[in-house]
Amino acid sequence: MAHPVTPTVVTEDTITDVAAERWGTAHDPRTAELLTALVRHLHAFARETRLSEAEWMAAIRWLTEVGQISDEKREEFILTSDVLGLSMLVVQQNHRFAEGATPATVLGPFHIEGSPELGYGADMSEGLPGTPLYVHGTVRALDGAPIPGAVLDVWQADSDGAYESQLDVDEARLRGKYTTREDGAYCVRTIAPLGYAIPMDGPVGRLIRQTEISHFRPAHVHFLLNVPGYEPLITHLFREGAEYLDSDVVFGVKRELVVTFAEREPGPTPDGGHSDVPWCEAAYDFVLQPA
Amino acid sequence: MAHPVTPTVVTEDTITDVAAERWGTAHDPRTAELLTALVRHLHAFARETRLSEAEWMAAIRWLTEVGQISDEKREEFILTSDVLGLSMLVVQQNHRFAEGATPATVLGPFHIEGSPELGYGADMSEGLPGTPLYVHGTVRALDGAPIPGAVLDVWQADSDGAYESQLDVDEARLRGKYTTREDGAYCVRTIAPLGYAIPMDGPVGRLIRQTEISHFRPAHVHFLLNVPGYEPLITHLFREGAEYLDSDVVFGVKRELVVTFAEREPGPTPDGGHSDVPWCEAAYDFVLQPA
Repeated sequence: MAHPVTPTVVTEDTITDVAAERWGTAHDPRTAELLTALVRHLHAFARETRLSEAEWMAAIRWLTEVGQISDEKREEFILTSDVLGLSMLVVQQNHRFAEGATPATVLGPFHIEGSPELGYGADMSEGLPGTPLYVHGTVRALDGAPIPGAVLDVWQADSDGAYESQLDVDEARLRGKYTTREDGAYCVRTIAPLGYAIPMDGPVGRLIRQTEISHFRPAHVHFLLNVPGYEPLITHLFREGAEYLDSDVVFGVKRELVVTFAEREPGPTPDGGHSDVPWCEAAYDFVLQPA
Repeated sequence: MAHPVTPTVVTEDTITDVAAERWGTAHDPRTAELLTALVRHLHAFARETRLSEAEWMAAIRWLTEVGQISDEKREEFILTSDVLGLSMLVVQQNHRFAEGATPATVLGPFHIEGSPELGYGADMSEGLPGTPLYVHGTVRALDGAPIPGAVLDVWQADSDGAYESQLDVDEARLRGKYTTREDGAYCVRTIAPLGYAIPMDGPVGRLIRQTEISHFRPAHVHFLLNVPGYEPLITHLFREGAEYLDSDVVFGVKRELVVTFAEREPGPTPDGGHSDVPWCEAAYDFVLQPA
Protein backbone atom coordinates (compact mmCIF):
# COMPACT_ATOMS: atom_id res chain seq x y z
CA MET A 1 0.00 0.00 0.00
CA ALA A 2 1.21 3.52 -0.73
CA HIS A 3 1.58 5.96 2.16
CA PRO A 4 1.60 9.45 0.69
CA VAL A 5 1.13 11.00 4.11
CA THR A 6 4.20 10.75 6.33
CA PRO A 7 3.09 11.32 9.88
CA THR A 8 5.56 12.17 12.62
CA VAL A 9 7.52 8.97 12.95
CA VAL A 10 7.49 8.29 16.65
CA THR A 11 9.85 5.47 17.45
CA GLU A 12 11.22 4.14 20.69
CA ASP A 13 14.28 6.28 19.98
CA THR A 14 12.51 9.56 19.20
CA ILE A 15 9.44 9.60 21.44
CA THR A 16 11.14 11.25 24.41
CA ASP A 17 12.38 14.18 22.33
CA VAL A 18 9.01 14.55 20.59
CA ALA A 19 7.09 14.48 23.90
CA ALA A 20 9.50 16.85 25.64
CA GLU A 21 9.28 19.29 22.74
CA ARG A 22 5.48 19.24 22.85
CA TRP A 23 5.26 19.95 26.57
CA GLY A 24 7.87 22.64 26.10
CA THR A 25 5.15 24.65 24.35
CA ALA A 26 3.56 25.52 27.70
CA HIS A 27 2.93 29.27 27.70
CA ASP A 28 4.48 29.86 31.10
CA PRO A 29 8.26 29.29 30.90
CA ARG A 30 8.51 27.66 34.31
CA THR A 31 5.62 25.28 33.48
CA ALA A 32 7.39 24.42 30.23
CA GLU A 33 10.60 23.73 32.14
CA LEU A 34 8.86 21.50 34.69
CA LEU A 35 6.85 19.50 32.16
CA THR A 36 9.81 19.01 29.84
CA ALA A 37 11.93 17.77 32.75
CA LEU A 38 9.07 15.55 33.92
CA VAL A 39 8.84 13.86 30.51
CA ARG A 40 12.60 13.30 30.37
CA HIS A 41 12.92 11.87 33.87
CA LEU A 42 9.77 9.73 33.61
CA HIS A 43 10.96 8.27 30.31
CA ALA A 44 14.47 7.73 31.72
CA PHE A 45 12.93 5.74 34.57
CA ALA A 46 10.88 3.59 32.17
CA ARG A 47 13.87 3.02 29.87
CA GLU A 48 16.36 2.23 32.60
CA THR A 49 14.06 -0.32 34.23
CA ARG A 50 12.63 -1.47 30.90
CA LEU A 51 9.24 -1.15 32.53
CA SER A 52 6.85 -3.91 31.43
CA GLU A 53 3.24 -3.33 30.47
CA ALA A 54 2.04 -5.29 33.51
CA GLU A 55 4.20 -3.12 35.79
CA TRP A 56 2.96 0.01 34.07
CA MET A 57 -0.65 -1.09 34.64
CA ALA A 58 0.09 -1.93 38.29
CA ALA A 59 1.47 1.61 38.70
CA ILE A 60 -1.66 3.12 37.10
CA ARG A 61 -3.87 1.12 39.49
CA TRP A 62 -1.73 2.09 42.48
CA LEU A 63 -1.75 5.81 41.67
CA THR A 64 -5.50 5.76 41.11
CA GLU A 65 -6.01 4.12 44.49
CA VAL A 66 -3.76 6.71 46.18
CA GLY A 67 -5.99 9.46 44.79
CA GLN A 68 -9.20 7.69 45.68
CA ILE A 69 -8.33 6.95 49.31
CA SER A 70 -7.41 10.61 49.84
CA ASP A 71 -9.90 13.01 51.42
CA GLU A 72 -9.93 15.98 53.77
CA LYS A 73 -8.50 13.87 56.58
CA ARG A 74 -6.13 11.76 54.58
CA GLU A 75 -3.45 12.88 52.13
CA GLU A 76 -2.07 9.68 50.62
CA PHE A 77 -0.07 11.48 47.91
CA ILE A 78 1.69 13.58 50.55
CA LEU A 79 2.40 10.34 52.39
CA THR A 80 3.76 8.85 49.18
CA SER A 81 6.05 11.83 48.70
CA ASP A 82 7.11 11.65 52.35
CA VAL A 83 8.08 7.96 52.34
CA LEU A 84 9.99 8.34 49.06
CA GLY A 85 12.09 11.10 50.62
CA LEU A 86 10.79 13.63 48.10
CA SER A 87 9.11 15.91 50.65
CA MET A 88 12.24 16.20 52.77
CA LEU A 89 14.41 16.80 49.68
CA VAL A 90 12.11 19.63 48.58
CA VAL A 91 12.12 21.13 52.08
CA GLN A 92 15.89 21.07 52.25
CA GLN A 93 16.59 22.55 48.84
CA ASN A 94 14.17 25.38 49.55
CA HIS A 95 15.53 26.16 53.02
CA ARG A 96 19.29 26.31 52.86
CA PHE A 97 19.72 28.14 56.15
CA ALA A 98 22.95 29.42 57.64
CA GLU A 99 24.88 27.30 60.12
CA GLY A 100 23.38 28.00 63.52
CA ALA A 101 19.84 28.60 62.27
CA THR A 102 17.22 26.04 63.28
CA PRO A 103 16.81 23.66 60.32
CA ALA A 104 13.47 23.00 58.65
CA THR A 105 11.74 19.68 58.32
CA VAL A 106 8.52 18.38 56.75
CA LEU A 107 5.20 20.11 57.37
CA GLY A 108 3.29 16.83 57.24
CA PRO A 109 -0.41 16.61 56.40
CA PHE A 110 -1.80 17.42 59.86
CA HIS A 111 -1.37 21.17 60.32
CA ILE A 112 -4.61 23.07 60.93
CA GLU A 113 -4.93 26.81 60.36
CA GLY A 114 -6.34 29.13 62.98
CA SER A 115 -5.20 27.48 66.20
CA PRO A 116 -6.22 29.24 69.42
CA GLU A 117 -3.88 31.87 70.86
CA LEU A 118 -2.52 30.66 74.17
CA GLY A 119 -0.60 32.46 76.92
CA TYR A 120 2.89 31.77 78.25
CA GLY A 121 2.88 28.24 79.68
CA ALA A 122 -0.76 27.57 78.78
CA ASP A 123 -1.69 23.91 78.40
CA MET A 124 -2.59 22.85 74.85
CA SER A 125 -3.17 19.25 76.00
CA GLU A 126 -5.96 20.08 78.48
CA GLY A 127 -7.63 16.92 79.68
CA LEU A 128 -5.60 14.46 77.60
CA PRO A 129 -3.60 11.64 79.19
CA GLY A 130 0.21 11.79 79.10
CA THR A 131 3.29 12.98 80.93
CA PRO A 132 3.27 16.79 81.28
CA LEU A 133 5.88 18.36 79.02
CA TYR A 134 7.14 21.93 79.12
CA VAL A 135 8.95 23.10 75.99
CA HIS A 136 10.56 26.47 76.61
CA GLY A 137 13.37 28.75 75.49
CA THR A 138 13.69 31.81 73.29
CA VAL A 139 13.17 32.69 69.68
CA ARG A 140 16.12 34.65 68.43
CA ALA A 141 18.00 35.91 65.38
CA LEU A 142 21.29 34.45 64.12
CA ASP A 143 23.17 37.18 66.02
CA GLY A 144 21.54 36.09 69.27
CA ALA A 145 19.09 38.99 69.57
CA PRO A 146 15.79 37.82 71.09
CA ILE A 147 12.68 38.26 68.94
CA PRO A 148 9.69 39.52 70.93
CA GLY A 149 6.16 38.93 69.63
CA ALA A 150 7.14 35.90 67.50
CA VAL A 151 4.28 33.45 67.09
CA LEU A 152 4.94 29.71 67.45
CA ASP A 153 2.20 27.60 65.89
CA VAL A 154 2.49 24.26 67.69
CA TRP A 155 0.79 20.89 67.08
CA GLN A 156 1.31 17.23 67.86
CA ALA A 157 -0.29 13.79 67.97
CA ASP A 158 -2.05 12.36 71.03
CA SER A 159 -0.95 9.26 72.95
CA ASP A 160 -2.62 7.10 70.28
CA GLY A 161 -0.63 8.80 67.50
CA ALA A 162 -3.73 10.63 66.24
CA TYR A 163 -3.80 14.29 65.19
CA GLU A 164 -6.90 16.41 65.56
CA SER A 165 -7.40 16.48 61.78
CA GLN A 166 -7.75 12.68 61.83
CA LEU A 167 -10.49 12.77 64.47
CA ASP A 168 -14.03 14.05 64.71
CA VAL A 169 -13.66 16.65 67.44
CA ASP A 170 -15.29 20.03 67.96
CA GLU A 171 -12.58 21.89 69.86
CA ALA A 172 -8.92 22.58 69.17
CA ARG A 173 -6.93 19.57 70.36
CA LEU A 174 -3.19 19.48 70.97
CA ARG A 175 -2.53 22.64 69.02
CA GLY A 176 -2.08 26.32 69.86
CA LYS A 177 -0.30 29.55 69.03
CA TYR A 178 2.21 30.85 71.58
CA THR A 179 3.73 34.34 71.40
CA THR A 180 7.19 35.23 72.70
CA ARG A 181 7.47 37.78 75.51
CA GLU A 182 9.56 40.96 75.37
CA ASP A 183 12.65 38.90 76.21
CA GLY A 184 11.96 36.47 73.33
CA ALA A 185 10.91 33.70 75.71
CA TYR A 186 8.15 31.19 75.01
CA CYS A 187 6.73 28.36 77.09
CA VAL A 188 4.49 25.55 75.79
CA ARG A 189 2.73 23.18 78.18
CA THR A 190 1.69 19.93 76.53
CA ILE A 191 2.15 16.16 76.96
CA ALA A 192 5.26 14.25 75.96
CA PRO A 193 4.72 12.98 72.39
CA LEU A 194 5.10 9.31 71.49
CA GLY A 195 6.28 7.67 68.30
CA TYR A 196 3.53 6.53 65.97
CA ALA A 197 2.87 4.56 62.82
CA ILE A 198 1.90 6.19 59.55
CA PRO A 199 -1.45 4.97 58.12
CA MET A 200 -0.78 1.44 56.91
CA ASP A 201 -4.25 0.50 55.62
CA GLY A 202 -3.80 2.05 52.16
CA PRO A 203 -1.61 1.71 49.08
CA VAL A 204 1.43 3.29 50.76
CA GLY A 205 1.22 0.82 53.64
CA ARG A 206 0.87 -2.06 51.22
CA LEU A 207 4.07 -1.00 49.48
CA ILE A 208 5.99 -0.57 52.73
CA ARG A 209 4.97 -4.06 53.90
CA GLN A 210 6.79 -5.45 50.87
CA THR A 211 10.06 -4.02 52.26
CA GLU A 212 12.07 -3.95 55.48
CA ILE A 213 11.19 -0.28 55.99
CA SER A 214 10.03 0.72 59.48
CA HIS A 215 6.67 2.48 59.26
CA PHE A 216 7.12 4.59 62.38
CA ARG A 217 7.95 8.17 63.14
CA PRO A 218 9.94 9.07 66.28
CA ALA A 219 8.25 11.17 68.99
CA HIS A 220 8.07 14.84 67.97
CA VAL A 221 6.25 18.14 68.34
CA HIS A 222 5.60 20.35 65.28
CA PHE A 223 6.44 24.07 65.17
CA LEU A 224 5.68 26.68 62.54
CA LEU A 225 7.16 30.16 62.92
CA ASN A 226 6.20 32.77 60.38
CA VAL A 227 7.87 35.91 61.73
CA PRO A 228 8.04 39.12 59.63
CA GLY A 229 11.62 39.84 58.52
CA TYR A 230 12.70 36.19 58.85
CA GLU A 231 12.48 33.08 56.67
CA PRO A 232 9.40 31.07 57.59
CA LEU A 233 10.41 28.03 59.61
CA ILE A 234 8.51 24.74 59.65
CA THR A 235 10.16 22.20 61.89
CA HIS A 236 9.86 19.54 64.62
CA LEU A 237 11.56 18.91 67.92
CA PHE A 238 12.35 15.23 68.48
CA ARG A 239 12.83 13.53 71.82
CA GLU A 240 16.40 12.44 72.38
CA GLY A 241 16.64 8.68 72.92
CA ALA A 242 13.25 8.09 71.32
CA GLU A 243 12.64 4.99 69.26
CA TYR A 244 12.83 5.30 65.45
CA LEU A 245 15.16 8.36 65.45
CA ASP A 246 17.41 6.37 63.12
CA SER A 247 14.63 5.13 60.89
CA ASP A 248 12.04 7.93 60.62
CA VAL A 249 9.83 6.71 57.77
CA VAL A 250 9.55 10.25 56.34
CA PHE A 251 13.28 11.12 56.71
CA GLY A 252 12.41 14.12 58.89
CA VAL A 253 15.08 13.83 61.62
CA LYS A 254 17.96 16.31 61.70
CA ARG A 255 20.58 16.07 64.43
CA GLU A 256 20.03 19.70 65.46
CA LEU A 257 16.34 19.02 66.14
CA VAL A 258 16.88 16.20 68.66
CA VAL A 259 16.56 17.62 72.18
CA THR A 260 16.71 16.25 75.69
CA PHE A 261 13.36 15.73 77.40
CA ALA A 262 14.69 15.90 80.96
CA GLU A 263 12.59 13.98 83.50
CA ARG A 264 11.71 16.09 86.53
CA GLU A 265 10.24 15.27 89.94
CA PRO A 266 7.03 16.95 91.11
CA GLY A 267 7.77 20.59 91.91
CA PRO A 268 8.08 24.05 90.33
CA THR A 269 7.67 24.28 86.55
CA PRO A 270 9.21 26.72 83.99
CA ASP A 271 6.02 28.78 83.71
CA GLY A 272 6.24 29.68 87.39
CA GLY A 273 3.66 27.06 88.36
CA HIS A 274 3.93 23.70 90.06
CA SER A 275 3.43 20.08 89.00
CA ASP A 276 2.11 17.46 91.42
CA VAL A 277 3.28 14.66 89.16
CA PRO A 278 6.58 13.88 87.43
CA TRP A 279 7.04 15.97 84.28
CA CYS A 280 9.43 16.55 81.40
CA GLU A 281 11.36 19.64 80.40
CA ALA A 282 12.70 20.41 76.93
CA ALA A 283 14.77 23.57 76.55
CA TYR A 284 15.21 24.81 72.99
CA ASP A 285 16.04 28.12 71.37
CA PHE A 286 14.67 28.63 67.88
CA VAL A 287 17.13 30.58 65.73
CA LEU A 288 15.63 32.25 62.66
CA GLN A 289 17.32 33.00 59.36
CA PRO A 290 16.85 36.61 58.11
CA ALA A 291 14.47 36.86 55.14
CA MET B 1 22.53 20.96 74.63
CA ALA B 2 24.23 17.58 74.38
CA HIS B 3 23.13 15.12 71.70
CA PRO B 4 24.34 11.70 72.78
CA VAL B 5 22.10 10.06 70.19
CA THR B 6 23.32 10.55 66.63
CA PRO B 7 20.40 9.80 64.33
CA THR B 8 20.91 9.13 60.65
CA VAL B 9 22.00 12.51 59.36
CA VAL B 10 19.80 13.07 56.37
CA THR B 11 20.99 16.09 54.45
CA GLU B 12 20.11 17.45 51.05
CA ASP B 13 23.22 15.63 49.80
CA THR B 14 22.55 12.23 51.36
CA ILE B 15 18.78 11.83 51.29
CA THR B 16 18.61 10.27 47.83
CA ASP B 17 21.08 7.53 48.72
CA VAL B 18 19.38 6.88 52.06
CA ALA B 19 15.91 6.67 50.47
CA ALA B 20 17.10 4.50 47.58
CA GLU B 21 18.82 2.14 50.00
CA ARG B 22 15.67 1.82 52.10
CA TRP B 23 13.42 0.99 49.16
CA GLY B 24 16.08 -1.42 47.96
CA THR B 25 15.06 -3.64 50.90
CA ALA B 26 11.93 -4.76 49.04
CA HIS B 27 11.77 -8.55 49.29
CA ASP B 28 11.14 -9.09 45.60
CA PRO B 29 14.29 -8.15 43.61
CA ARG B 30 12.35 -6.59 40.72
CA THR B 31 10.26 -4.50 43.13
CA ALA B 32 13.49 -3.36 44.81
CA GLU B 33 14.93 -2.43 41.42
CA LEU B 34 11.84 -0.47 40.41
CA LEU B 35 11.46 1.42 43.70
CA THR B 36 15.16 2.27 43.90
CA ALA B 37 15.10 3.60 40.35
CA LEU B 38 11.88 5.51 41.10
CA VAL B 39 13.49 7.27 44.07
CA ARG B 40 16.58 8.19 42.05
CA HIS B 41 14.67 9.55 39.05
CA LEU B 42 12.07 11.37 41.13
CA HIS B 43 14.78 13.04 43.19
CA ALA B 44 16.77 13.87 40.05
CA PHE B 45 13.69 15.63 38.66
CA ALA B 46 13.19 17.63 41.87
CA ARG B 47 16.88 18.56 42.06
CA GLU B 48 17.28 19.51 38.41
CA THR B 49 14.22 21.76 38.47
CA ARG B 50 14.88 22.87 42.05
CA LEU B 51 11.20 22.17 42.66
CA SER B 52 9.64 24.72 45.02
CA GLU B 53 7.30 23.83 47.87
CA ALA B 54 4.39 25.56 46.11
CA GLU B 55 5.05 23.55 42.93
CA TRP B 56 5.32 20.36 44.97
CA MET B 57 1.97 21.10 46.60
CA ALA B 58 0.38 21.89 43.21
CA ALA B 59 1.62 18.50 41.97
CA ILE B 60 0.14 16.75 45.04
CA ARG B 61 -3.22 18.45 44.42
CA TRP B 62 -3.12 17.60 40.70
CA LEU B 63 -2.31 13.92 41.26
CA THR B 64 -5.04 13.62 43.87
CA GLU B 65 -7.55 15.09 41.44
CA VAL B 66 -6.44 12.69 38.70
CA GLY B 67 -7.19 9.78 41.03
CA GLN B 68 -10.48 11.19 42.19
CA ILE B 69 -11.93 11.92 38.74
CA SER B 70 -11.14 8.34 37.67
CA ASP B 71 -13.83 5.67 37.73
CA GLU B 72 -14.94 2.63 35.75
CA LYS B 73 -15.58 4.78 32.68
CA ARG B 74 -12.69 7.17 33.01
CA GLU B 75 -9.01 6.39 33.45
CA GLU B 76 -7.33 9.76 34.00
CA PHE B 77 -3.99 8.24 35.02
CA ILE B 78 -3.86 6.23 31.79
CA LEU B 79 -4.66 9.47 29.96
CA THR B 80 -1.84 11.19 31.87
CA SER B 81 0.58 8.46 30.86
CA ASP B 82 -0.67 8.63 27.27
CA VAL B 83 -0.22 12.38 26.82
CA LEU B 84 3.24 12.30 28.40
CA GLY B 85 4.32 9.71 25.83
CA LEU B 86 4.97 7.15 28.57
CA SER B 87 2.36 4.64 27.39
CA MET B 88 3.71 4.57 23.85
CA LEU B 89 7.30 4.28 25.10
CA VAL B 90 6.34 1.29 27.24
CA VAL B 91 4.47 -0.32 24.33
CA GLN B 92 7.44 0.11 22.03
CA GLN B 93 10.11 -1.19 24.36
CA ASN B 94 8.00 -4.27 25.09
CA HIS B 95 7.19 -5.03 21.46
CA ARG B 96 10.37 -4.83 19.43
CA PHE B 97 9.00 -6.72 16.45
CA ALA B 98 10.89 -7.76 13.35
CA GLU B 99 10.83 -5.56 10.27
CA GLY B 100 7.72 -6.49 8.33
CA ALA B 101 5.61 -7.40 11.38
CA THR B 102 2.66 -5.10 12.13
CA PRO B 103 3.80 -2.68 14.85
CA ALA B 104 2.00 -2.28 18.16
CA THR B 105 0.45 0.88 19.51
CA VAL B 106 -1.38 1.92 22.67
CA LEU B 107 -4.29 -0.14 24.03
CA GLY B 108 -6.06 2.94 25.31
CA PRO B 109 -8.60 2.84 28.13
CA PHE B 110 -11.66 1.79 26.09
CA HIS B 111 -11.21 -1.91 25.36
CA ILE B 112 -14.02 -4.13 26.67
CA GLU B 113 -13.59 -7.88 27.23
CA GLY B 114 -16.02 -10.41 25.81
CA SER B 115 -17.11 -8.73 22.57
CA PRO B 116 -19.60 -10.72 20.47
CA GLU B 117 -18.27 -13.16 17.89
CA LEU B 118 -19.19 -11.94 14.42
CA GLY B 119 -19.04 -13.65 11.02
CA TYR B 120 -17.02 -12.66 7.94
CA GLY B 121 -18.20 -9.22 6.87
CA ALA B 122 -20.70 -8.85 9.73
CA ASP B 123 -21.60 -5.28 10.67
CA MET B 124 -20.39 -4.18 14.14
CA SER B 125 -21.86 -0.69 13.62
CA GLU B 126 -25.47 -1.87 13.19
CA GLY B 127 -27.84 1.09 13.22
CA LEU B 128 -25.22 3.79 13.84
CA PRO B 129 -24.78 6.73 11.48
CA GLY B 130 -21.62 6.95 9.36
CA THR B 131 -20.03 5.98 6.06
CA PRO B 132 -19.89 2.18 5.68
CA LEU B 133 -16.32 0.94 5.98
CA TYR B 134 -15.00 -2.50 5.08
CA VAL B 135 -11.64 -3.39 6.57
CA HIS B 136 -10.37 -6.62 5.05
CA GLY B 137 -7.22 -8.58 4.30
CA THR B 138 -5.42 -11.51 5.83
CA VAL B 139 -3.66 -12.33 9.06
CA ARG B 140 -0.36 -13.96 8.32
CA ALA B 141 3.04 -14.92 9.69
CA LEU B 142 6.29 -13.14 8.88
CA ASP B 143 7.00 -15.74 6.17
CA GLY B 144 3.69 -14.91 4.49
CA ALA B 145 1.82 -18.04 5.56
CA PRO B 146 -1.85 -17.23 6.25
CA ILE B 147 -3.09 -17.89 9.78
CA PRO B 148 -6.55 -19.50 9.85
CA GLY B 149 -8.74 -19.19 12.96
CA ALA B 150 -7.01 -16.02 14.20
CA VAL B 151 -9.34 -13.83 16.25
CA LEU B 152 -9.35 -10.05 15.67
CA ASP B 153 -10.90 -8.18 18.57
CA VAL B 154 -12.00 -4.87 17.01
CA TRP B 155 -13.36 -1.66 18.60
CA GLN B 156 -13.74 2.01 17.76
CA ALA B 157 -15.46 5.27 18.67
CA ASP B 158 -18.77 6.43 17.22
CA SER B 159 -19.27 9.55 15.13
CA ASP B 160 -19.31 11.63 18.33
CA GLY B 161 -15.92 10.23 19.40
CA ALA B 162 -17.54 8.16 22.16
CA TYR B 163 -16.65 4.54 22.96
CA GLU B 164 -19.17 2.13 24.38
CA SER B 165 -17.39 2.14 27.75
CA GLN B 166 -18.09 5.88 28.01
CA LEU B 167 -21.81 5.45 27.43
CA ASP B 168 -24.71 3.83 29.23
CA VAL B 169 -25.73 1.19 26.74
CA ASP B 170 -27.04 -2.34 27.14
CA GLU B 171 -25.75 -4.01 23.97
CA ALA B 172 -22.31 -4.32 22.42
CA ARG B 173 -21.66 -1.18 20.39
CA LEU B 174 -18.97 -0.77 17.73
CA ARG B 175 -17.00 -3.79 18.85
CA GLY B 176 -16.78 -7.42 17.83
CA LYS B 177 -14.55 -10.44 17.39
CA TYR B 178 -13.83 -11.58 13.84
CA THR B 179 -12.16 -14.90 13.03
CA THR B 180 -10.01 -15.51 9.95
CA ARG B 181 -11.14 -18.12 7.43
CA GLU B 182 -9.06 -21.09 6.27
CA ASP B 183 -7.24 -18.77 3.84
CA GLY B 184 -6.37 -16.32 6.67
CA ALA B 185 -8.87 -13.74 5.40
CA TYR B 186 -10.95 -11.48 7.62
CA CYS B 187 -13.56 -8.85 6.80
CA VAL B 188 -14.92 -6.24 9.23
CA ARG B 189 -17.94 -4.13 8.35
CA THR B 190 -18.15 -0.93 10.40
CA ILE B 191 -18.38 2.85 9.88
CA ALA B 192 -15.47 5.09 8.95
CA PRO B 193 -13.98 6.41 12.21
CA LEU B 194 -13.51 10.13 12.83
CA GLY B 195 -10.88 11.98 14.81
CA TYR B 196 -11.90 12.92 18.32
CA ALA B 197 -10.81 14.92 21.34
CA ILE B 198 -9.57 13.32 24.53
CA PRO B 199 -11.58 14.25 27.65
CA MET B 200 -10.69 17.88 28.36
CA ASP B 201 -12.87 18.51 31.43
CA GLY B 202 -10.37 17.15 33.97
CA PRO B 203 -6.84 17.79 35.25
CA VAL B 204 -5.18 16.44 32.07
CA GLY B 205 -7.24 18.78 29.92
CA ARG B 206 -6.41 21.70 32.19
CA LEU B 207 -2.72 21.01 31.74
CA ILE B 208 -2.98 20.66 27.96
CA ARG B 209 -4.81 23.99 27.70
CA GLN B 210 -1.73 25.65 29.17
CA THR B 211 0.25 24.50 26.12
CA GLU B 212 0.05 24.53 22.32
CA ILE B 213 -0.60 20.77 22.30
CA SER B 214 -3.45 19.55 20.09
CA HIS B 215 -5.90 17.49 22.13
CA PHE B 216 -7.11 15.32 19.26
CA ARG B 217 -6.53 11.81 18.07
CA PRO B 218 -6.61 11.01 14.34
CA ALA B 219 -9.33 8.66 13.02
CA HIS B 220 -8.54 5.03 13.85
CA VAL B 221 -9.92 1.56 14.51
CA HIS B 222 -8.48 -0.61 17.31
CA PHE B 223 -7.39 -4.22 16.82
CA LEU B 224 -6.23 -6.79 19.34
CA LEU B 225 -4.90 -10.14 18.09
CA ASN B 226 -3.98 -12.76 20.65
CA VAL B 227 -3.10 -15.75 18.50
CA PRO B 228 -1.45 -18.87 20.02
CA GLY B 229 2.17 -19.20 18.88
CA TYR B 230 2.50 -15.47 18.09
CA GLU B 231 3.29 -12.34 20.07
CA PRO B 232 0.05 -10.66 21.14
CA LEU B 233 -0.56 -7.61 18.98
CA ILE B 234 -2.45 -4.52 20.13
CA THR B 235 -2.64 -1.91 17.43
CA HIS B 236 -4.71 0.63 15.43
CA LEU B 237 -5.27 1.30 11.78
CA PHE B 238 -5.31 5.03 10.97
CA ARG B 239 -7.00 6.64 8.00
CA GLU B 240 -4.52 8.04 5.52
CA GLY B 241 -5.01 11.80 5.05
CA ALA B 242 -6.91 12.13 8.34
CA GLU B 243 -6.52 15.22 10.46
CA TYR B 244 -4.15 15.05 13.44
CA LEU B 245 -1.96 12.25 12.04
CA ASP B 246 1.02 14.51 12.69
CA SER B 247 -0.09 15.55 16.16
CA ASP B 248 -1.77 12.53 17.78
CA VAL B 249 -2.04 13.62 21.42
CA VAL B 250 -1.10 10.13 22.63
CA PHE B 251 1.81 9.61 20.17
CA GLY B 252 0.15 6.45 18.82
CA VAL B 253 0.72 6.92 15.05
CA LYS B 254 3.24 4.70 13.27
CA ARG B 255 3.79 5.10 9.54
CA GLU B 256 3.08 1.40 8.91
CA LEU B 257 -0.36 1.71 10.49
CA VAL B 258 -1.64 4.49 8.20
CA VAL B 259 -3.78 2.92 5.47
CA THR B 260 -5.80 4.18 2.55
CA PHE B 261 -9.55 4.31 3.10
CA ALA B 262 -10.50 4.15 -0.60
CA GLU B 263 -13.86 5.78 -1.41
CA ARG B 264 -16.11 3.49 -3.45
CA GLU B 265 -19.32 4.05 -5.38
CA PRO B 266 -22.45 2.03 -4.53
CA GLY B 267 -21.94 -1.55 -5.72
CA PRO B 268 -20.45 -4.91 -4.71
CA THR B 269 -18.61 -5.05 -1.38
CA PRO B 270 -15.65 -7.24 -0.24
CA ASP B 271 -17.89 -9.57 1.78
CA GLY B 272 -19.72 -10.58 -1.39
CA GLY B 273 -22.63 -8.28 -0.63
CA HIS B 274 -23.71 -4.95 -2.09
CA SER B 275 -23.86 -1.36 -0.84
CA ASP B 276 -26.59 1.02 -1.99
CA VAL B 277 -24.59 4.00 -0.73
CA PRO B 278 -21.01 5.16 -1.18
CA TRP B 279 -18.64 3.24 1.07
CA CYS B 280 -14.96 3.01 2.06
CA GLU B 281 -12.54 0.16 1.68
CA ALA B 282 -9.37 -0.38 3.72
CA ALA B 283 -7.19 -3.32 2.77
CA TYR B 284 -4.66 -4.39 5.39
CA ASP B 285 -2.73 -7.56 6.15
CA PHE B 286 -1.80 -8.08 9.79
CA VAL B 287 1.62 -9.71 10.06
CA LEU B 288 2.33 -11.42 13.38
CA GLN B 289 5.66 -11.91 15.10
CA PRO B 290 6.34 -15.48 16.29
CA ALA B 291 6.14 -15.85 20.08
